[in-house]
Amino acid sequence: MNSKLGPFFDPRSVAIIGASAVPGKPGCEVIRNILANGYEGRIYPVNPKGGRIMEIDVLSAIEGLPPDVDVAVIILPAAATAQALMACAERGIRHFVLASGGFAEVDEAGALIQEELVRIIRERGLHVLGPNTSGHTSTPRAFTSTFFPQGKIRRGRVSYIAQTGNFGTHTLKYILTGEHFGVARVVGLGNKIGIDETDALEYLGADPETAAILIYIESFKRPLEFLKAAREITRRKPVVLLKSGATEAGRQAAMAHTAAMASPDRIVDGMLRQAGVVRVSDYTDLILAGKAFSMLPLPAGNGVSFLAPSGAMLATLSDFCVRLGLHIPPLEAENVKRLQDISPSYIRMRNPVDIWPAALSSGVESAYREGMEIVLKDPAVDAVVPVLMLTRETGVPDPAFIVELAKKYPGKPILVTFSGARECMDEYKAALEPLGIPTFPEIEQPFEALSILMQCGRAMTRPR
Amino acid sequence: MNSKLGPFFDPRSVAIIGASAVPGKPGCEVIRNILANGYEGRIYPVNPKGGRIMEIDVLSAIEGLPPDVDVAVIILPAAATAQALMACAERGIRHFVLASGGFAEVDEAGALIQEELVRIIRERGLHVLGPNTSGHTSTPRAFTSTFFPQGKIRRGRVSYIAQTGNFGTHTLKYILTGEHFGVARVVGLGNKIGIDETDALEYLGADPETAAILIYIESFKRPLEFLKAAREITRRKPVVLLKSGATEAGRQAAMAHTAAMASPDRIVDGMLRQAGVVRVSDYTDLILAGKAFSMLPLPAGNGVSFLAPSGAMLATLSDFCVRLGLHIPPLEAENVKRLQDISPSYIRMRNPVDIWPAALSSGVESAYREGMEIVLKDPAVDAVVPVLMLTRETGVPDPAFIVELAKKYPGKPILVTFSGARECMDEYKAALEPLGIPTFPEIEQPFEALSILMQCGRAMTRPR
Repeated sequence: MNSKLGPFFDPRSVAIIGASAVPGKPGCEVIRNILANGYEGRIYPVNPKGGRIMEIDVLSAIEGLPPDVDVAVIILPAAATAQALMACAERGIRHFVLASGGFAEVDEAGALIQEELVRIIRERGLHVLGPNTSGHTSTPRAFTSTFFPQGKIRRGRVSYIAQTGNFGTHTLKYILTGEHFGVARVVGLGNKIGIDETDALEYLGADPETAAILIYIESFKRPLEFLKAAREITRRKPVVLLKSGATEAGRQAAMAHTAAMASPDRIVDGMLRQAGVVRVSDYTDLILAGKAFSMLPLPAGNGVSFLAPSGAMLATLSDFCVRLGLHIPPLEAENVKRLQDISPSYIRMRNPVDIWPAALSSGVESAYREGMEIVLKDPAVDAVVPVLMLTRETGVPDPAFIVELAKKYPGKPILVTFSGARECMDEYKAALEPLGIPTFPEIEQPFEALSILMQCGRAMTRPR
Repeated sequence: MNSKLGPFFDPRSVAIIGASAVPGKPGCEVIRNILANGYEGRIYPVNPKGGRIMEIDVLSAIEGLPPDVDVAVIILPAAATAQALMACAERGIRHFVLASGGFAEVDEAGALIQEELVRIIRERGLHVLGPNTSGHTSTPRAFTSTFFPQGKIRRGRVSYIAQTGNFGTHTLKYILTGEHFGVARVVGLGNKIGIDETDALEYLGADPETAAILIYIESFKRPLEFLKAAREITRRKPVVLLKSGATEAGRQAAMAHTAAMASPDRIVDGMLRQAGVVRVSDYTDLILAGKAFSMLPLPAGNGVSFLAPSGAMLATLSDFCVRLGLHIPPLEAENVKRLQDISPSYIRMRNPVDIWPAALSSGVESAYREGMEIVLKDPAVDAVVPVLMLTRETGVPDPAFIVELAKKYPGKPILVTFSGARECMDEYKAALEPLGIPTFPEIEQPFEALSILMQCGRAMTRPR
């Protein structure tokens, strides 16, 4: 366990400096979140008023803390933070989450306070997340330091590092309410006076709970160290990064946000690619990719097969695959023949698969199941995307057949998308995703997700 | 009214050759669809068995049809189509929908039958849609010839021309079940032995019911005539086109589909641009754009303002706007001051708008309403995208405030997107879209839609 970051993700005890009994206040919500997640360590709220908060005794002063507190979450006005930090350090605490804003991101006065914090943590050898962070989360330990009213956070296999608070707050809220995957660790870096993206990457790279790492960043604090760490980690697990500031407008927005000075974008691009980091450009990709990594194996190569109920979709999606660098391989002669056997004779079968004629002649479920199995068996095919046509009138098959195929071919990702009636799509999502088969409302999305998976797979096996 | 296409879209009477009483059979579903849409013209089912279908008397022979039938829908095996066509022509019918497949798209024998059809329609001066078409729809006349079990088709302002059946079948099904917009006319061209994309474009270009035209095509039958028609029509209304076959893989898929020989893609690209046609590349764009045209005015220019609850989103979306050719203009000094007035002093306000600090200090609804109004007023801003953060815990404002703003600023499109809890997003979609304000589940989508609108606006005002 890394002594610099380990206690953040596996704290035996935590102090909340600035705890509050008032719902809606960050000092209250953080405790609610910790309790809602079922944290088993000890919690020490600190507030001069004392009393009890959610049936936990409140200490009236930092000086009353026991000597073995692993992490202190400080939620005080910026001006009061340095003093609290020192008082905690006196009690032997070495790991801190500084949740408040009001530092260098705000004004000169805040910058001066931040400099003071930097001096303290250097002198005392403290490890600090933030300031201006929305906290962090460690579902394997049922712990979170976020003050965003999140409730129970679903456990999962992917971890997020974000320079800003989104992944601990509303984006995670979307993942928890709109998707069926969870997270392992989430780190909000904030102003990065202590822990930075390289520290977080190194920790998550070695973390057995983390299968893939997704990063949102506006600037690199230690670019060379980051790239050095990434070069090794990307051979073991996928690292996907969204860096804003690729354009002048983006740079200005990032500067207004975290005063980040962006590097020339093409240089960043090339260096990340060399380090095996897969760069994405849409914010939504961080959700798409998180879902894909949570549910799917990495494909062995870039060969894709897809089955669609429409020649127009086959043609358009073929164009789309080429643009994404996905390959639509020809199938073995035997498999072409099998496809032909399940289809009316008038249609000449190939990859991609025009599946609707077969569905009309032998039923929707039978056509998709047999068609998918034929392409899943083909050695040139590394992943399969069925575009399911679902309407009550044409028949909605039991989604179980896809679960069976996914179990039977565990090495080949199956990504499901749809055409037809919305309520059927929602039913399929609800049925398949809890069983680990991702669905996507738009027909382009599975290919986008697959492209990210395939780039990561290629990075993992790249020559030294 | 165009005599070549007019009767298709405004038929006073229709004959169904190959009508059937058996649910699920195309010859039955087409009649169900016509009745479900409330068609007020006369319907003449024809089937040698006679009897009644859905309480309509069935004629046992084409020869029994009255002399004034506007359109005949022929749903017979390919081999029987030519004879039916001639018999109908003898009765004076001049407009036909040939719904069956089994012609040139299938094999040599089918190609021969198709040649025979071509000869007949030339000799007799007939107007034919298809063969191998999923039919057409005209909601202003409550009429459809589609055999896909569609039920009532919602009336709207956009029209679709599609070389293949999707827009009359499952894609329209999605629009009707998953979205809140409808269609004016839908034309499935099929094998194009008579009516082609140029005919359809010319009709829709002059059609007062059609506010925007969306086209999916795999090949141009008369490219020069198409471009000539488009050059004029795109000055009056938006024309958006998806042409597959941009890549070799796409070309092969299109060839397998409709035997379409694609033109070199870069040439197509340049010619379409010159003709004012806005080309898109994703199938989903045809739905996004349809929604945007259905609900929004065209923006006057490419100046966009957006409000987001996250600096990361502001930075990432700024990059995204630049890539799409959208401009994020600086605001007038007075408006910057107004934004500053509603925000905590520590944050330096600008466009794009970091709205969450204001939401925290003055409430979510108040912050978004005032922020949106300030940017809507600004003369450099042509369209506004609020990225609403919606969670029960942080407060979900009544969506009415957005409806009020849209009414107050009717010339500036407002496109809504979200972050936060899924159920709140769904509620907003259900509340706003029936009132004409589009919502998009992913934060990139409103910008994609806006980019299409802006390109169309630019095409309409381009110099001669």
